Amino acid sequence: MIVLTSEQLEQVLTPDIAINAVRQAFSLYSSGKITQPQRQVLTIKGNWWGIMPSFWERSVVIKIVNVIPDNKRRGIAAVQGSVLLFSPETGEPLALLDGTTLTAIRTSAASVLSAELAFDSRNIGNLGVIGAGTEARYHIKLATSYLKYSKVMVTARSSHTQLAKEFGAEAVDLETLLKSSDVIFATTSSSSPVVLGKFLKDDFHVSSIGAHTPESREIDDETIKKTKTFFVDSLEAVGKEAGDYIQPTKAGILKQALEIGEIINKGVKVQRPSVFKTVGIAAQDNITALVAYEEAVKKGIGVKIT
Amino acid sequence: MIVLTSEQLEQVLTPDIAINAVRQAFSLYSSGKITQPQRQVLTIKGNWWGIMPSFWERSVVIKIVNVIPDNKRRGIAAVQGSVLLFSPETGEPLALLDGTTLTAIRTSAASVLSAELAFDSRNIGNLGVIGAGTEARYHIKLATSYLKYSKVMVTARSSHTQLAKEFGAEAVDLETLLKSSDVIFATTSSSSPVVLGKFLKDDFHVSSIGAHTPESREIDDETIKKTKTFFVDSLEAVGKEAGDYIQPTKAGILKQALEIGEIINKGVKVQRPSVFKTVGIAAQDNITALVAYEEAVKKGIGVKIT
Repeated sequence: MIVLTSEQLEQVLTPDIAINAVRQAFSLYSSGKITQPQRQVLTIKGNWWGIMPSFWERSVVIKIVNVIPDNKRRGIAAVQGSVLLFSPETGEPLALLDGTTLTAIRTSAASVLSAELAFDSRNIGNLGVIGAGTEARYHIKLATSYLKYSKVMVTARSSHTQLAKEFGAEAVDLETLLKSSDVIFATTSSSSPVVLGKFLKDDFHVSSIGAHTPESREIDDETIKKTKTFFVDSLEAVGKEAGDYIQPTKAGILKQALEIGEIINKGVKVQRPSVFKTVGIAAQDNITALVAYEEAVKKGIGVKIT
Repeated sequence: MIVLTSEQLEQVLTPDIAINAVRQAFSLYSSGKITQPQRQVLTIKGNWWGIMPSFWERSVVIKIVNVIPDNKRRGIAAVQGSVLLFSPETGEPLALLDGTTLTAIRTSAASVLSAELAFDSRNIGNLGVIGAGTEARYHIKLATSYLKYSKVMVTARSSHTQLAKEFGAEAVDLETLLKSSDVIFATTSSSSPVVLGKFLKDDFHVSSIGAHTPESREIDDETIKKTKTFFVDSLEAVGKEAGDYIQPTKAGILKQALEIGEIINKGVKVQRPSVFKTVGIAAQDNITALVAYEEAVKKGIGVKIT
């Protein structure tokens, strides 16, 4: 078996490879070809831990992830994770992968893919990223390498100036970003809306990866009222976890939602203004881990354990 | 984090260390200091897969194990497993350990510990091992290094002559083994009894690790009728899984059973003839993994992943 560290994952999961992996993951998920058993949630010393298995014809993946808010004052990542890939035939472990980086890459890849589908092209005009954490960083990295764009803007409560500088992006205030972006990636830990419909351009596309509890919102009702295509990673998952889907559905504001896998499988055309809401599904971890492993073996990357 | 292969686990988990680890595991388990959430069972391509979490003050461990009978014709182990050890404080992965070897060692360590408790000494007279698989091998290895014995006998349906030669033991038939052993380790995959009470010495001790379904038996009723102390790893676990406990309890033959952790915690004296029935509990994996990790760090053993 091999071990793939964070750096090695970044090496093998180029934007093209990562985006293709999540495209395949969503397609398999919406056609029922990948099984995602109920995840097991543990509370350990007050912190959230999740064990997420998934399997299909070609791979068995178990992701173990936790959220340790206290880590911030320790100077280490608040989200820690490990992903194990097994052969479904022989049961042998094939790879251990850094779960934090794998998660960040597959999440960003989903957002970038949603933008490509919304524009039916890699050409997306102005990109605005809300947030300045790990997810924001990976979103900018993948987007600027995979998509064609005019400019990139970043806004956040703090540290976005630093992030903007790093990627040659503009640090702006939220209102400016909302008014001048064609594509918005919302990657915040806010529990109240940051994507405000009143400021948005006419044919926006928003991908929202934050607000993953039924009570929290990242997108306001105004945005949803304007939206023509509202699509999600998994109707089952957002129906349980995403306030941005649950609340407007209950209120009758959101009348229809599609899975991104259906859009891919049936060649549905996304009508802008559009919103992609994603809470992240195990299928993404599964296929991204499998593809990372296959690429690493091909290129001789990774720590070999014998 | 570090990775510990099968060979490296054998290096760090000396018999003394392994037996101390399971002693601590059973003690923590029976005093309610370690949490073993319900294991998740998956059926993948017709094979059994289990995900077993456990945690306490000092370690979080997730063991993933599967049973792939078809592996026998592939020439690889039918039981494959991986164990991940995490820090409960920071959530960081500390070690990935070979699950197959860890399981074999902690299981053998439990049997050897049960014999030490039954004799209140390491001096156990004649040892008889039934079975010639991986578990039998590790049982002989740990027992002959940790216990003081007169001779070791081995019996099985096949290949025990080879195994006996390897360890300087005697290959004998089952009746001879049952008649002349003071301690018997039953490590078979038989579903009907191999430990037959009519042949046993007066003050035998039996440790039975096979027959881990409610329908199967490794010990007959005659043996149980003669037994003064019947002890187990976990009353809850054997009550669900072990025919050797469930059936005689239902039939009224077995009236009382103790947990080995209670025996350790309360200093209860085991009365021979005695039987120890074990199906294996997550606490054993947890503490054995933690101890292996700590020893490996101390000794600079293992593949370092940075």
